[in-house]
Amino acid sequence: MATVVFCSVNKTAQTTVKRCLSSHLTGLARAGVLHSQLSSTHSPLVNLLPGTRWFSRGVGVRFMSHGTAGRSAAGKTKRGALALSGAAAVTRAEMATRVSKATEVNDQEGSILERCRGFMSPPVTDISVLQGRKDDMRTRMEMLIMETQAEFCRALQEVDGGKFQVDRWERKEGGGGISCVMQDGKVFEKAGVNVSVVFGYLTEEAAKQMRSRGKVLKGKDGKLPFCAMGVSSVIHPKNPHIPTVHFNYRYFEIEEEDGTKQWWFGGGTDLTPVYINKEDAFHFHKTLKDACDKHHPQYYPDFKKWCDRYFYVRHRGETRGIGGIFFDDLDSPSQEEVFNFVKSCARTVVPCYLPIVSKHLNDSFTAEEKDWQQIRRGRYVEFNLVYDRGVKFGLATPGSRIESILMSLPLTAKWEYMHEPAKGTQEAEMLEVLKNPKEWV
Amino acid sequence: MATVVFCSVNKTAQTTVKRCLSSHLTGLARAGVLHSQLSSTHSPLVNLLPGTRWFSRGVGVRFMSHGTAGRSAAGKTKRGALALSGAAAVTRAEMATRVSKATEVNDQEGSILERCRGFMSPPVTDISVLQGRKDDMRTRMEMLIMETQAEFCRALQEVDGGKFQVDRWERKEGGGGISCVMQDGKVFEKAGVNVSVVFGYLTEEAAKQMRSRGKVLKGKDGKLPFCAMGVSSVIHPKNPHIPTVHFNYRYFEIEEEDGTKQWWFGGGTDLTPVYINKEDAFHFHKTLKDACDKHHPQYYPDFKKWCDRYFYVRHRGETRGIGGIFFDDLDSPSQEEVFNFVKSCARTVVPCYLPIVSKHLNDSFTAEEKDWQQIRRGRYVEFNLVYDRGVKFGLATPGSRIESILMSLPLTAKWEYMHEPAKGTQEAEMLEVLKNPKEWV
Repeated sequence: MATVVFCSVNKTAQTTVKRCLSSHLTGLARAGVLHSQLSSTHSPLVNLLPGTRWFSRGVGVRFMSHGTAGRSAAGKTKRGALALSGAAAVTRAEMATRVSKATEVNDQEGSILERCRGFMSPPVTDISVLQGRKDDMRTRMEMLIMETQAEFCRALQEVDGGKFQVDRWERKEGGGGISCVMQDGKVFEKAGVNVSVVFGYLTEEAAKQMRSRGKVLKGKDGKLPFCAMGVSSVIHPKNPHIPTVHFNYRYFEIEEEDGTKQWWFGGGTDLTPVYINKEDAFHFHKTLKDACDKHHPQYYPDFKKWCDRYFYVRHRGETRGIGGIFFDDLDSPSQEEVFNFVKSCARTVVPCYLPIVSKHLNDSFTAEEKDWQQIRRGRYVEFNLVYDRGVKFGLATPGSRIESILMSLPLTAKWEYMHEPAKGTQEAEMLEVLKNPKEWV
Repeated sequence: MATVVFCSVNKTAQTTVKRCLSSHLTGLARAGVLHSQLSSTHSPLVNLLPGTRWFSRGVGVRFMSHGTAGRSAAGKTKRGALALSGAAAVTRAEMATRVSKATEVNDQEGSILERCRGFMSPPVTDISVLQGRKDDMRTRMEMLIMETQAEFCRALQEVDGGKFQVDRWERKEGGGGISCVMQDGKVFEKAGVNVSVVFGYLTEEAAKQMRSRGKVLKGKDGKLPFCAMGVSSVIHPKNPHIPTVHFNYRYFEIEEEDGTKQWWFGGGTDLTPVYINKEDAFHFHKTLKDACDKHHPQYYPDFKKWCDRYFYVRHRGETRGIGGIFFDDLDSPSQEEVFNFVKSCARTVVPCYLPIVSKHLNDSFTAEEKDWQQIRRGRYVEFNLVYDRGVKFGLATPGSRIESILMSLPLTAKWEYMHEPAKGTQEAEMLEVLKNPKEWV
């Protein structure tokens, strides 16, 4: 969640190299402001500002170190962007074959102007600029995240009857965002859907950090232009029988002195119920699995595991919820293929979540069930403030839009000392699943 | 707040050297468990566990770098433990003269057994052990923190009519604690008063970190015995016109290979009102100032500033509350003098806070005022989970007693998107003070 661009620079450092348009990039990192809603999905090791250390390779990334095939992408550099675990790991050649099937999912990208009409707000980038570079990945991704925001907001408005408040904000260093928030609605306690598109330069400090990760990245006059964009959302419903959902899809580019460009995608969708409902869990995971399977049979099992490891409240020994998928650093087999996969994921958000909302819309609940929801909300706050890399990075970055970063926090939460559900209760069953993540499909 | 021993090792590294009794010390740090309720008052740079980096020299400590006299204490090492700022900074000789007056505050330490009868629970250390080393600072400090806990809990029970739940807990590596919590009382939403006394060894990893701070500390077989103890408390009342209070007083010892011992004290008391009441603020600060002034005229102004800097929610640009005092690393002019100062502070907790509670006990309040309190509670959670060094360290330390660490969190809290008090309101007045800390005395 949150509204932060984390510069996964250590990863970019190993990414397929491409050309990068840098004309819009301003002194973003130098000014210490890297925000957008790309939150919980990055794992940079960048010291953008003195004293702002940004650790990479967390839980999720550690997962990648097992069974990574270390494939070499189409560009100059070699890396292991995608973890394909154990015996099921495939070679790059195999993968390319499989993924080529995914390209059958056509873009259906019509007229820029026409598509913009359906958005919650004009896109962050000027429409004429987008039209001028229609086939550039930055344009295609910005259009996708704007569409995802609009599609999801509309679906939520329809079920709630309320309206999203739409706030456009700008970064003086370059770019901005669109925050859509619905608060205290009929169905939703707090619903936030954020888009951000930011660009600028990485500091020399950041470059140094990258160097310490084993890769020297040279920028013009010590500065590395980059751009980052994404859509992220957290929805907290009122009814304790409707789960909280979170998703985030993002794209990152960075340019070296010689003009070579590195890029990657990241993202994920995960569910945090207050009570276990096996049907819901199956539906949610099956929908994600189907979207993943269209692109690679190993995506779902690997990204499901990664999700369970990333959304882990270590001090409680619990996952935040029942997971979903989570991935980062995805830069192979090709930009087109990865974009198509991300598009499939983004378009799966509504079918993953809305049927669950509709199903439980009129479920009755007790004061005790509401109380348990509030306690689970407290744990959500703990994860977001203590572990979420996007939130931590955003809060540590002067000039971030705090309200967009923290819109992922619930309207209300509770901390009861020594709260422990009695054995055999539904609350205890929930905890059991959080302590021992299950396979749902 | 919280229940964590943070090993302020980088500071000890510069501390007056004394003898240390280490017979009770076990493999605490090696096992990665350093907990007690010494939270927000330490600033270690210790990597106790691989991957658990513990930054020191935060806001509070940065303050120390201005105008520090760099005095040499009675022992072998030289350091600047206490920041005496600007023109008012005094030499060590001057200070010793002033502080000697403070020794007039007699200990009044009677029979160990007799005093233990008044505690909320038997002390953490066996009474026979305490009796066997009656004059040892560890005994005197453990008695003081147990007394402070009992005195404060009794005063709160009297005004609330409720009873504290008393939980004793043990650390298998050595020591333990006593957590007293009253939840959902008549007056208090959540009141926690924690004592902990822990001992063990620092890992070689920790020793390495210390070395990187410019000081080599050698332990027997690479291990450095240490002990740490303290009392800490956070009280969240129900009525928005009664402020939240936090205090914490702690003592730390560490022993080198050659038997030399380093020790220091830390602590503070601070107030977090929901609405500004100048009379309350004056009373609170004046009571603290009087306690400080008995020991050194520069203590209050310096520790007041340090408090404002430590309890700062950077991403909001606000202090957590209206401050009080905060200090760390205090190891001069002598152990006796510092202990007397800490005792004065600890005995000032009840007279600082209880008159304010009593005064507002029957204040009426509106739903809007309760709502503003809940929003301020959210900011309290933000500080505690994002910045508080004790909480962060505790959560990162496997085996910590999480319920004691997080008992500082309010029972309930709220996050409203884009909440902004209207100009001229009392809520706006509160924010103004939090953005621009005042002198109250």
